[in-house]
Amino acid sequence: MPLVRIAFRAGKSAQYRQVVADEVHRSLIEAASVPEQDRFQILTEHSPADLIYDPTYLGVKRTDDIVMIQITLNQRTQAAKVALYKAIAERLAKNPGVKPGDVLISLVPVAPEDWSFGDGKAQYVKTN
Amino acid sequence: MPLVRIAFRAGKSAQYRQVVADEVHRSLIEAASVPEQDRFQILTEHSPADLIYDPTYLGVKRTDDIVMIQITLNQRTQAAKVALYKAIAERLAKNPGVKPGDVLISLVPVAPEDWSFGDGKAQYVKTN
Amino acid sequence: MPLVRIAFRAGKSAQYRQVVADEVHRSLIEAASVPEQDRFQILTEHSPADLIYDPTYLGVKRTDDIVMIQITLNQRTQAAKVALYKAIAERLAKNPGVKPGDVLISLVPVAPEDWSFGDGKAQYVKTN
Repeated sequence: MPLVRIAFRAGKSAQYRQVVADEVHRSLIEAASVPEQDRFQILTEHSPADLIYDPTYLGVKRTDDIVMIQITLNQRTQAAKVALYKAIAERLAKNPGVKPGDVLISLVPVAPEDWSFGDGKAQYVKTN
Repeated sequence: MPLVRIAFRAGKSAQYRQVVADEVHRSLIEAASVPEQDRFQILTEHSPADLIYDPTYLGVKRTDDIVMIQITLNQRTQAAKVALYKAIAERLAKNPGVKPGDVLISLVPVAPEDWSFGDGKAQYVKTN
Repeated sequence: MPLVRIAFRAGKSAQYRQVVADEVHRSLIEAASVPEQDRFQILTEHSPADLIYDPTYLGVKRTDDIVMIQITLNQRTQAAKVALYKAIAERLAKNPGVKPGDVLISLVPVAPEDWSFGDGKAQYVKTN
């Protein structure tokens, strides 16, 4: 269910991007109760001019290694969101080594009825 | 009003992508009461490494022909959403022949006041 | 906090895109109480076939200079949204000279807890 969009500065290797995608998904499983198979991700690369960030907003130090992660997902509790941010930053710091300041996350909460996983069906809608 | 983002694996022809875009729009008109002229769509192509999907989540069979469709639109009833998923999958199966399992849809419901269709105005906001 | 996605037809110069991004950000500061440093933007370019718009929906005149701006941000009042649309269209008309009809804006309101600005923290969540 989460649809995950991850935006990178151009120049990272395909392997690096893959590891980021993998670790974001592991974090969703671990901290936000996302099923292991529930994985749908779109990775994009952008030129320096096209990926704009503030280097110090809220006292966080950001660099050109910034990764912008936008996750559309069913609503989670505040506690789960906080745990998810921590999990993503910690996992990416270990592998592939993204600095925690470079991990920007934006969640877009939606409802179970807002998804069709194929076959023209709303799989999360309970029918009587 | 819907802003529709459609992500394809690279390699589909411009005509194929156009037909997908057309049929998604026809489905919105037919099943979700979207006006015919209310059409705004962004199509993107992605390398295999950058468009990641699970091939069997929820028992749906997915292939590299997967199409990820994210639609920002004004809130609809659950019934309209269910009808929309069905319409999109059926239309795309007929033309250009997307397998129903390859049609992933994510809705992002917003409010009428969340749109400006140009001229700096909020056209859907009623003013007294 | 706003995460701003701006989609252009391919062919605009990097400087033109930069000015659009700058002016959209100035508008957010001016009309939507966004802090000056709170700037995160992703700009993309698309071929004519991949950026589809209706040229007259709701009586607005649109051309190939269309700019589609999608802003994920914390909820704002209706008055602030209306002021934001006006500010963006007026600023872009002055610099770099985007026709007001070519400014399409889609807002995606979320909550303060839906953001992590880095370091694995939910900076907008108040903790006791």
